[in-house]
Amino acid sequence: MKFPDHLEKVIEVLKKLPSVGRKSAERFAFHLLDWNEGALKEFATAISDIPFKIHHCHECGCLMDKPHPHTCHFCSSPRRDKHLLCIIATPKDAYAIEETREYHGLYHVLGGLISPLEGRDPEALNLSSLHRRLENVKCREVIIALDSTLEGDATALYLQQKLSALPFTVSRLAFGLPIGSSLDYVDGGTLAMAIMGRKRDMN
Amino acid sequence: MKFPDHLEKVIEVLKKLPSVGRKSAERFAFHLLDWNEGALKEFATAISDIPFKIHHCHECGCLMDKPHPHTCHFCSSPRRDKHLLCIIATPKDAYAIEETREYHGLYHVLGGLISPLEGRDPEALNLSSLHRRLENVKCREVIIALDSTLEGDATALYLQQKLSALPFTVSRLAFGLPIGSSLDYVDGGTLAMAIMGRKRDMN
Repeated sequence: MKFPDHLEKVIEVLKKLPSVGRKSAERFAFHLLDWNEGALKEFATAISDIPFKIHHCHECGCLMDKPHPHTCHFCSSPRRDKHLLCIIATPKDAYAIEETREYHGLYHVLGGLISPLEGRDPEALNLSSLHRRLENVKCREVIIALDSTLEGDATALYLQQKLSALPFTVSRLAFGLPIGSSLDYVDGGTLAMAIMGRKRDMN
Repeated sequence: MKFPDHLEKVIEVLKKLPSVGRKSAERFAFHLLDWNEGALKEFATAISDIPFKIHHCHECGCLMDKPHPHTCHFCSSPRRDKHLLCIIATPKDAYAIEETREYHGLYHVLGGLISPLEGRDPEALNLSSLHRRLENVKCREVIIALDSTLEGDATALYLQQKLSALPFTVSRLAFGLPIGSSLDYVDGGTLAMAIMGRKRDMN
């Protein structure tokens, strides 16, 4: 027996959320059937307002509350080190890095990673504004903070080649043992990177 | 560092979905940031249209496409056995029972289960229309198809008492071993019910 048409439609849209399969989408949809009209309206408005109430900084691509003429929290802050630039794949990565309280420079969001399998080549990345920024700012160091995956490695390599001729240090996040890990359980690739990247000066 | 206000709001509404915690809601919200305006609008409309496009049969409480003057697929079908009534907690249960192809009677949706802990007493259930239906229809058997949980048991007991004086059989779904289970892994309560409910006639 089929679900009502609109319920089927609700299930289909919910299935587009990441790692939500048919079963979870059905559970969400049946749960929504119990919500009152006001709650559903609030949910719907929150979703449809996203493009009008969440903005990307035109300078770095990070998220912000205010629209275009404004720049983001980082770009507009006098306290951030303007000679340090951290290249990240998505705006979310900035929040993870901020949590560490170890970084006080600016960000640049690529908007993705190079992925030949998914047909995303370097042109799909936010690179033209990166070049423009690097020309205008006296940069001391560019930190490549990308995933330690195939796509992250490919993108980091591409950036390293592109930026190697420019007069500043290009660095990449260290690879090694995650804190609290046991050698027994760490995969071979990580252990190999930890050995290669070992620090001789133990202070 | 805080997320933009509206992103925080989107995360809050997504957290209201069942078993979606803060982390999942954040993943959903950041995923939605990549959707275009049209896709977000479609999602939002699907949600806000729920009360206008999915209806409950005023006779039995099952879901249907068409609004009030119509009755549902079951109530309006000449092929269903009108002398058999299956009492279920939610409209979703009808779909699970239909899947088995073992039942051909009508349904009655209670809209919940009695739960003293959550403050849901018998008045919260769709019982007045159940009594009305049982008076109007010459019922042969009422099957109580509720969860085998504390709430399901309490509700079944309540219904059995209420219906015992009426001139038809009241039955409840059998308890026992789920198909494919090993005695080793079945909990004691289930095994006890399987022993008590054993069938002597093995045909």
